[in-house]
Amino acid sequence: MLTPKFDNLVKQLRVLPGVGQKSAQRMALHLLTQKRAQGMALANALDEAMREIIECERCHSFSDEPICPLCQDPRREDKVLCVVETAGDVMAIEQSGGYCGRYFVLGGHLSPIDGIGIDELNIDQLINRLKVEPIDELILATGTTVEGQTTAQFISQAATHHVAKITRLAQGIPVGGELEYLDSMTLNQAMSNRAKL
Amino acid sequence: MLTPKFDNLVKQLRVLPGVGQKSAQRMALHLLTQKRAQGMALANALDEAMREIIECERCHSFSDEPICPLCQDPRREDKVLCVVETAGDVMAIEQSGGYCGRYFVLGGHLSPIDGIGIDELNIDQLINRLKVEPIDELILATGTTVEGQTTAQFISQAATHHVAKITRLAQGIPVGGELEYLDSMTLNQAMSNRAKL
Repeated sequence: MLTPKFDNLVKQLRVLPGVGQKSAQRMALHLLTQKRAQGMALANALDEAMREIIECERCHSFSDEPICPLCQDPRREDKVLCVVETAGDVMAIEQSGGYCGRYFVLGGHLSPIDGIGIDELNIDQLINRLKVEPIDELILATGTTVEGQTTAQFISQAATHHVAKITRLAQGIPVGGELEYLDSMTLNQAMSNRAKL
Repeated sequence: MLTPKFDNLVKQLRVLPGVGQKSAQRMALHLLTQKRAQGMALANALDEAMREIIECERCHSFSDEPICPLCQDPRREDKVLCVVETAGDVMAIEQSGGYCGRYFVLGGHLSPIDGIGIDELNIDQLINRLKVEPIDELILATGTTVEGQTTAQFISQAATHHVAKITRLAQGIPVGGELEYLDSMTLNQAMSNRAKL
């Protein structure tokens, strides 16, 4: 609309999730008008991240080095392993601050309809790791969707001979949730998983 | 949270308007997981735009070259000049498609409280241009805020000897606006500016 380079910036900004034409224009104008230096810093950070962030060889999460900081951290418990679908899940659990074991990222969930079978995920690598490492507890923190549940079920069966204890995250009413507005599936789960006070 | 380069990317993404910590994380994860090539293209577009987009020497809008495409376009009317506050305003008017004259970007509005006086805006350049160029109509399309109105008033006084016709954008009910939900100021304006059917 204004100049070819401006239009190209707007077009490229639209690759960001949740950013449409209007937001992209607003972003481009904001950076050009007031934040040129920060815009260049963003360009650098973006380029560096896209080129240099790799997959951790141990946990398959994102990492700057062959082994990620979480796998290297000597303060974390080696005998508890939490299996998640994506690196974003690792981040969410880390931000909750309630876990201090290791992680393993599957890279998604089993979904035959999308062509994602066992070979597309890091399931073999997980089982191989369980064979050689003494793990006391394997936490299957895949999603609560049908695919997430199926993936957890599958791993549970494959891992059963290598790990003593296999657990799954609790399902129930979220903190601050009101019974009145909760969906019936969640309420049913919460009822059947009720715990002694 | 995950790795230093990831954290840096999230931090830099937050410079974008309307992007908080959660959205920045979502953007970074989305690009890293699925859109590395597009992420690099965005980095390039961003770097190029920040470095190479300059101010047009004639209209002070954004441009890739010393004179912007709108000032160069031979199909536009030379004798109608629309004065706006920002390059974003040029874009908005261009997208509306109802104008085919030239533009002049002031770079803001007069606002003594923020230290923005006549010298901080491109008002001198505008008056100099009016002195040498034959302009039939000067459209003062600054904002309808107190500052925008004051700026229009000031330019109107300074330009009065150089231009025959000075106009201001119409104020009234927006298209699709319902009387019931309109603020009284706008309704008052619409009433006093009422036009013959």
